[in-house]
Amino acid sequence: MKETRYFYVPDAARQSELPEEEAGHALRVLRLKAGDEMFLMDGVGTFFRAEVTVAAGKHCMYEIKDRFPQHPTWRGHIHLAIAPTKMMERMEWMVEKATEVGFDEISFLGCKFSERKVLRADRVEKIVVSAMKQSRKAWKPVVNTMCSFGEFMAVEHPGRKYICHCYEEFPKKDFFSEIQETIDYEDNEDILVLVGPEGDFSVDEVQLALEKGYESVSLGRSRLRTETAGLSAVMMANLARRIQ
Amino acid sequence: MKETRYFYVPDAARQSELPEEEAGHALRVLRLKAGDEMFLMDGVGTFFRAEVTVAAGKHCMYEIKDRFPQHPTWRGHIHLAIAPTKMMERMEWMVEKATEVGFDEISFLGCKFSERKVLRADRVEKIVVSAMKQSRKAWKPVVNTMCSFGEFMAVEHPGRKYICHCYEEFPKKDFFSEIQETIDYEDNEDILVLVGPEGDFSVDEVQLALEKGYESVSLGRSRLRTETAGLSAVMMANLARRIQ
Repeated sequence: MKETRYFYVPDAARQSELPEEEAGHALRVLRLKAGDEMFLMDGVGTFFRAEVTVAAGKHCMYEIKDRFPQHPTWRGHIHLAIAPTKMMERMEWMVEKATEVGFDEISFLGCKFSERKVLRADRVEKIVVSAMKQSRKAWKPVVNTMCSFGEFMAVEHPGRKYICHCYEEFPKKDFFSEIQETIDYEDNEDILVLVGPEGDFSVDEVQLALEKGYESVSLGRSRLRTETAGLSAVMMANLARRIQ
Repeated sequence: MKETRYFYVPDAARQSELPEEEAGHALRVLRLKAGDEMFLMDGVGTFFRAEVTVAAGKHCMYEIKDRFPQHPTWRGHIHLAIAPTKMMERMEWMVEKATEVGFDEISFLGCKFSERKVLRADRVEKIVVSAMKQSRKAWKPVVNTMCSFGEFMAVEHPGRKYICHCYEEFPKKDFFSEIQETIDYEDNEDILVLVGPEGDFSVDEVQLALEKGYESVSLGRSRLRTETAGLSAVMMANLARRIQ
């Protein structure tokens, strides 16, 4: 039972009560009572051991007993920007797996050939939180609301930037080899990688990304579905930046 | 439409008719007719361009026009042996993704702490074939029927062998670092990696594997679900052995 006593509480150190949804789980499902021990994660790197002080109605108050900062297991900021697949469940599992493996941020892009034009970021957020708890991470990946490819390009991002695509016309480097090379981008180890929709990015989109300083890359010689490509990119980035 | 005209035909070069299930898809779904072009893969490395010669009832006969051997994109034989998860769909997506990424063989282990004791290998085989077609691979991963951990240990496997587990008592090396090192096992690049059930292998199982020459490894510092661990192991093996 103790296994499931993990709760996500943003800004946990300054709060003294579980958020409503977490309180419901703590009280109705786990039936925690005053004096019971539980663990909180604040999503920005710290676990807390806490004791339930009040368990009444929909309210679960706590007192923090200990704090345990979690050491990062990878360097830099790993950001995946992906055109969501037509089938939402394929995005959902990818987000679950990417959270388990470890990454920092996900953005969803509306592209010219996108089959899915809207996406409920709140649903993705729930999956991220659940996977974060299950895999005992004190760091929560940031989930951004969907935006158009053009809007995304208009924002400046630090670090190295990559776009994966299947066009033969644009020379491509190997993503994993590239990110493993010695960093000389002013010691910035951040990685932002773009994965297109089922029908790929358009030529214009690839062209725009190249103009914006993105590097043209391939994830290897296998033909991957969009969600598999997204997860592969995250796994490669995590491997290339891991701290052992 | 052409995109879906791929059929898996074991021993395609010596046959002249699609297997029943593939014929059903060709004739009832795609409505292929005599003279139409289609592509066959034999599962052991060759694509064929073929022409439909007879399309009648449940029978689809063909004549081979061209053959295209597919060059391997990784070296050695990548074999994952995994204790299937309680939820079958988690195994199914793992098998689909591992096939897309690229591996050679999968075995299913009944372990002391396994939550799933039986597994329909024919269902897994269907998913493998479908992913193989979708990702345009001429090589089909071998799907073995489930066996007990003890039975699996009784069989000799060539190449390097690894067991992933979470016990602190056994020293562990990093799987990805290990498999990237220069091969000195008589030039054998084969990799066999074992992933345990939700409740991990038992201490006795780990002990037995070590006695049988398996190396004790970790997939990294993230806590991964069984199916995520399985896919991670395959992705790491594929990356370490890839041919660029």
